Amino acid sequence: MPSTIALDAMGSDRAPKPEVDGAIQASRHYGIRVLLVGREAAIKAELSRHPTAAWLPIEIVNASEVVTMEDKAAQALRSKRDSSLRVGLRLVREKRAAGFVTAGNTGAAMATAKMVLGALPGVDRPALAAVFPTALGTAAVLLDVGANVDCKPENLEQFAVMGEIYCRSILGIKRPRVGLLSIGEEETKGNELTRESFQLLKQLPLNFVGNVEGRDLYGGRVDVIVADGFVGNVALKTSEGVVNLVRFALKEALRSTITRQVGYLLSRSAFVDFKKRLDHTEYGGAPLLGLKGVCIITHGSSNANAIKNAIRVASEFAERSINDTIEKGLAGLHRSAAPATVST
Amino acid sequence: MPSTIALDAMGSDRAPKPEVDGAIQASRHYGIRVLLVGREAAIKAELSRHPTAAWLPIEIVNASEVVTMEDKAAQALRSKRDSSLRVGLRLVREKRAAGFVTAGNTGAAMATAKMVLGALPGVDRPALAAVFPTALGTAAVLLDVGANVDCKPENLEQFAVMGEIYCRSILGIKRPRVGLLSIGEEETKGNELTRESFQLLKQLPLNFVGNVEGRDLYGGRVDVIVADGFVGNVALKTSEGVVNLVRFALKEALRSTITRQVGYLLSRSAFVDFKKRLDHTEYGGAPLLGLKGVCIITHGSSNANAIKNAIRVASEFAERSINDTIEKGLAGLHRSAAPATVST
Repeated sequence: MPSTIALDAMGSDRAPKPEVDGAIQASRHYGIRVLLVGREAAIKAELSRHPTAAWLPIEIVNASEVVTMEDKAAQALRSKRDSSLRVGLRLVREKRAAGFVTAGNTGAAMATAKMVLGALPGVDRPALAAVFPTALGTAAVLLDVGANVDCKPENLEQFAVMGEIYCRSILGIKRPRVGLLSIGEEETKGNELTRESFQLLKQLPLNFVGNVEGRDLYGGRVDVIVADGFVGNVALKTSEGVVNLVRFALKEALRSTITRQVGYLLSRSAFVDFKKRLDHTEYGGAPLLGLKGVCIITHGSSNANAIKNAIRVASEFAERSINDTIEKGLAGLHRSAAPATVST
Repeated sequence: MPSTIALDAMGSDRAPKPEVDGAIQASRHYGIRVLLVGREAAIKAELSRHPTAAWLPIEIVNASEVVTMEDKAAQALRSKRDSSLRVGLRLVREKRAAGFVTAGNTGAAMATAKMVLGALPGVDRPALAAVFPTALGTAAVLLDVGANVDCKPENLEQFAVMGEIYCRSILGIKRPRVGLLSIGEEETKGNELTRESFQLLKQLPLNFVGNVEGRDLYGGRVDVIVADGFVGNVALKTSEGVVNLVRFALKEALRSTITRQVGYLLSRSAFVDFKKRLDHTEYGGAPLLGLKGVCIITHGSSNANAIKNAIRVASEFAERSINDTIEKGLAGLHRSAAPATVST
């Protein structure tokens, strides 16, 4: 039986259009049953533009409130008890859905998911993972990218185990190479946290390749990169900044003379390919790892394709029992970490 | 009288060629007197290929040893007492040169500079600053990018003062906007270090714009970005990784069909412009701020242009008495920081 995924229909910047379109695509291509959670009237209006969708296993679950990008996480938790975020996650807790997808406020989604679903045994802090393309055409996983700051070595150890399992199960890499994000390759390099974490990671039963540097993130020589959430978030957002800079500089350069414009027109399909290669929407968003349940967070600017892929990944996450594997993987560690500070 | 700059002639990956070429250009264009420090025979051989250089104010100072990229910083300090690095920095300490430039081993250069020159009064830890282009065509300064890890708030406060002065004096920005690299804009966002540093930075007599995120580094909305050296180094190297990924993906896309190749040929000058726009060699390398003396570190892959610009910047750094300004700026703080850990 195909799985059921709850989708926050009010999350993205242009909600509910990308959500409804993405749900239809996921339902049509993968046979996934999708529960569209949010304001019924708005979702119905959008659905009515797709008459053939009536035959697909798509249902609406009403939620009267919407968490906006401006809402603070704590505030959203306290005051918006009937938000699409909270109602959707409750569907997972009550086993009415196998997983939840949202393109909404990341901070609020993390806080709500932790409260509604709770952490798996052995997990001190759930981590947010990002999946992105490398130069070799493979994908790599970086975690944590912002759920936890001021991490302890034990937190990073748990991130390594969870990231490795995700990489194996979803990206299909047989023996993922796990690296620790630091500022120099030798094990004595880095800061106090990375030096202590190095000692824990090298004892884990996984393919630990040692310290890696920022420039290795996209090189394809490592599949899972472990970092404190502050550092991972800076790396991720810096990358976005560089891509924006490069796009801007290239556009400026290409439109300055007629010859260059003709050149651009002739090579335009190359730029489509190029963008596709850098496109993160293929990888189905950022999973929150370590929860009793499945929660995938996608970018606020997600298009239908990104939503479709996130729904697919949520379904695979549930079907492949990744959480059971994580629980077993962590059970072997026999350690309890002093908790890191939750990013607010 | 034009200033005298000591240049490590043995530092870069292709030394001494880029160094000799860069010295000739700096000497010719700016009238700077350059002391080429390193193995006399090798430098002479390279100089002999430029007969007209004999009329320029370029001299050789012999140093029998070379610190390689593989040498550990501590080892280089202990064992290579006649290295071009050490001899060059000694010329600065003895006031025979106004500043020093090297494209060699960054870790060894930082350690040697700190030992030979010493820190300015009020500076607990000298910081390495990186200068890079933004989308608006301006330049921005990020510090620290790897000299100090596990920083205290007082270290970041000193970095802010030093970076702001550098930005004003060398980049000519009248009232630089200073930001704190964090993971969210509100002052409560970030980790323990950034939250405490925020409180110190907002009391400084400079244009503090609050927290900035990784994606703001290249946006041109901030001129000086303050960070712990671990975080700054990750941001810088991640950026390098992204640029490499983008170049690779673009090249692959452009060479796949004949039409695209023709398009590329027509727009080739656009790519030259594009590369120039992203080119960091224009900005003259990374200054070590907070030393009793001037020391500029450039990339190991530096070409003659990068060396020329670094020599120019070293000369401006000395002429504009930046160190006096830093000393005065820090004297107002009346604080003494517990030292950060030096990155090894």
